[in-house]
Amino acid sequence: MIITLINCLLFSGCSRQSSENIRAPRPQIISPEVHANNTVTFRYNAPHAKTVKMDPQFMEGMADMVKDENGIWSVTLGPVEPDMYPYGFIVDGTTVMDDNNPFYFENERFKASIVDIPGPDPLIHSVQDVPHGTVNYEYYTSPVLGTTGRFLVYTPPGYDEQPDQKYPVFYLISGTTDTDETYFKVGRANFILDNMIARGETKPMIVVMPYGNPAAYFDAGDPRGAAAGQRLNEDFLTVMMPYVEKNYRTINNAANRAIGGFSRGGNQGLTIGMNNLDKFSYLCSYASFAGNVKEFETTFKDFIKDPAQTNRKINLFWLGVGTDDFLYENARLFMDKLEQNGIRTTTLITGGGHTWMNAKLYLYESAKFLFQQ
Amino acid sequence: MIITLINCLLFSGCSRQSSENIRAPRPQIISPEVHANNTVTFRYNAPHAKTVKMDPQFMEGMADMVKDENGIWSVTLGPVEPDMYPYGFIVDGTTVMDDNNPFYFENERFKASIVDIPGPDPLIHSVQDVPHGTVNYEYYTSPVLGTTGRFLVYTPPGYDEQPDQKYPVFYLISGTTDTDETYFKVGRANFILDNMIARGETKPMIVVMPYGNPAAYFDAGDPRGAAAGQRLNEDFLTVMMPYVEKNYRTINNAANRAIGGFSRGGNQGLTIGMNNLDKFSYLCSYASFAGNVKEFETTFKDFIKDPAQTNRKINLFWLGVGTDDFLYENARLFMDKLEQNGIRTTTLITGGGHTWMNAKLYLYESAKFLFQQ
Repeated sequence: MIITLINCLLFSGCSRQSSENIRAPRPQIISPEVHANNTVTFRYNAPHAKTVKMDPQFMEGMADMVKDENGIWSVTLGPVEPDMYPYGFIVDGTTVMDDNNPFYFENERFKASIVDIPGPDPLIHSVQDVPHGTVNYEYYTSPVLGTTGRFLVYTPPGYDEQPDQKYPVFYLISGTTDTDETYFKVGRANFILDNMIARGETKPMIVVMPYGNPAAYFDAGDPRGAAAGQRLNEDFLTVMMPYVEKNYRTINNAANRAIGGFSRGGNQGLTIGMNNLDKFSYLCSYASFAGNVKEFETTFKDFIKDPAQTNRKINLFWLGVGTDDFLYENARLFMDKLEQNGIRTTTLITGGGHTWMNAKLYLYESAKFLFQQ
Repeated sequence: MIITLINCLLFSGCSRQSSENIRAPRPQIISPEVHANNTVTFRYNAPHAKTVKMDPQFMEGMADMVKDENGIWSVTLGPVEPDMYPYGFIVDGTTVMDDNNPFYFENERFKASIVDIPGPDPLIHSVQDVPHGTVNYEYYTSPVLGTTGRFLVYTPPGYDEQPDQKYPVFYLISGTTDTDETYFKVGRANFILDNMIARGETKPMIVVMPYGNPAAYFDAGDPRGAAAGQRLNEDFLTVMMPYVEKNYRTINNAANRAIGGFSRGGNQGLTIGMNNLDKFSYLCSYASFAGNVKEFETTFKDFIKDPAQTNRKINLFWLGVGTDDFLYENARLFMDKLEQNGIRTTTLITGGGHTWMNAKLYLYESAKFLFQQ
């Protein structure tokens, strides 16, 4: 029995009904392998490939890999600045995940893996020995979307032990091609909040992670997907948010609601938030902006007509973007337009581009200010 | 802004910091596309590949794909019997997921996608308009494993609305190379239970989905992984199960505990269950067996020494296996040994092999009998 199971463990095609022959037993290779000096070795088994390159987000461009006598391609890169980075292999032009790495970049479309370079000190997204919150997958029937929707909910440590306590809530939306899982699996929102709460850097809060393209999950390939995605805002306010407030112990007023997100999710969050200041007093924009920035004054006429009144309704308008971001110009212009029109903001300009390294960083930096008033 | 976001949506490398050039904009292709007559078209974009085949678990062997003038390979197969099936593309010998399909086969190692052939009537694993339970990702510190462990918990519909109600609990373990997510994402345990509960086919219950190789998730590439996996049983009984019973409203006696699983998970579940009948009275083996079946009488000496007494402690010993399963002979021999030694069992022999189609089926068939006594 032990022998059978070990064979099975070594045999990648174990859970198959038939054609076991087509997935030959593979050598046990480790990839990625992070070394003590923060260099990292990537390996990919492709004996028949002509070229295998790799494409890690910690460097510009691609790295060539070299094949050994067993058909395993490898390259060692770095030292790399500690963080989590997406990467993929390009096998004769086709981008694939790392077979040997169980950490996926959860996404609607492209396939990438994630490498975690831990460094000497624990990073804010790392699993540490602190009390952990729970991440819940919630399913709800949406008449607006015409389908079953899903979103994720982080509840902070102690949520179940204190059944009378209510919490502020942060609606945090991922970007284009991301799913409701991306801020959990790639953004590590749960571990960032666990660590911040343990350090006293932020208040215990509930974090709701909706899906910016909600129907796509259940209707992949169905043309309803796009239309349903556009109905996000209506679903958000009339179905999903009431569902959250019925099923979780949220404090239901503007002073205890935040909304924001990364990229398209920031746009969606700002659009909902700026148009509903009676409901949200904390707004967060990560590598994003709202509306047509060149026609800002027209689009946000009501928002800016009485800046003092608008500012009284907003406890935090946080915006961050990286100088290498392809949305940098528009995001900066959006910040400038807000300032020029007398809207009080907190801004952070960093290095880096339109990446999940920055999406994580902005979550951390902005969460310090959430629900402090 | 709208134009920017649409460009971004069309551009698969959108969430990238640099080297956008290496992921050219790809045509929007739909894969898999399930047709009304239960045939299904698979497509893969690989203009430079010499051969692309596909490997679906609904048929023996591989299917050749044909390239069109845009470099998109495709094949239409079937009609296929309605069910969910893993599949992958083999691009010049390298097995990859379907880029355009967001449904992954969650797994430690091999990369496969999932196609759902819905058929005319809703299948037991399908998302239906019934009350839905929640799936929770729980993190816990394990002194036994020396790391942070994770498991998933399904709570049935109404769990939050009835804070005084307690529930029976089923510990359901996935197989070799599977993770704690596999019975959720591939096995659809939550939807199967939702549908069965809505139909009155089973009782509302909590389902705990542990990780059969618990340390691997956080220690990928760390040699502690294997040793920690062997400590599963100790962690299960002394850390994880007490954590569940502290944080969820479980009924804590043998009459309200079930344990089992698929493949290696079935082995682990049976080993824990058969050695702890004071704690578990429902045992489920899906395409599995325990111990060295040829030395059954030695291994299970205590278990079979007084069959009448053992039978009194067991409310259900359910075993299922498919005739094409590579574990069929051992699983059948295990069933026979139990019967020969006077142990009362409920068995189901089906067609099919060592697949998640059967893992889902066995969950459904056995859950009908859970907590009925």
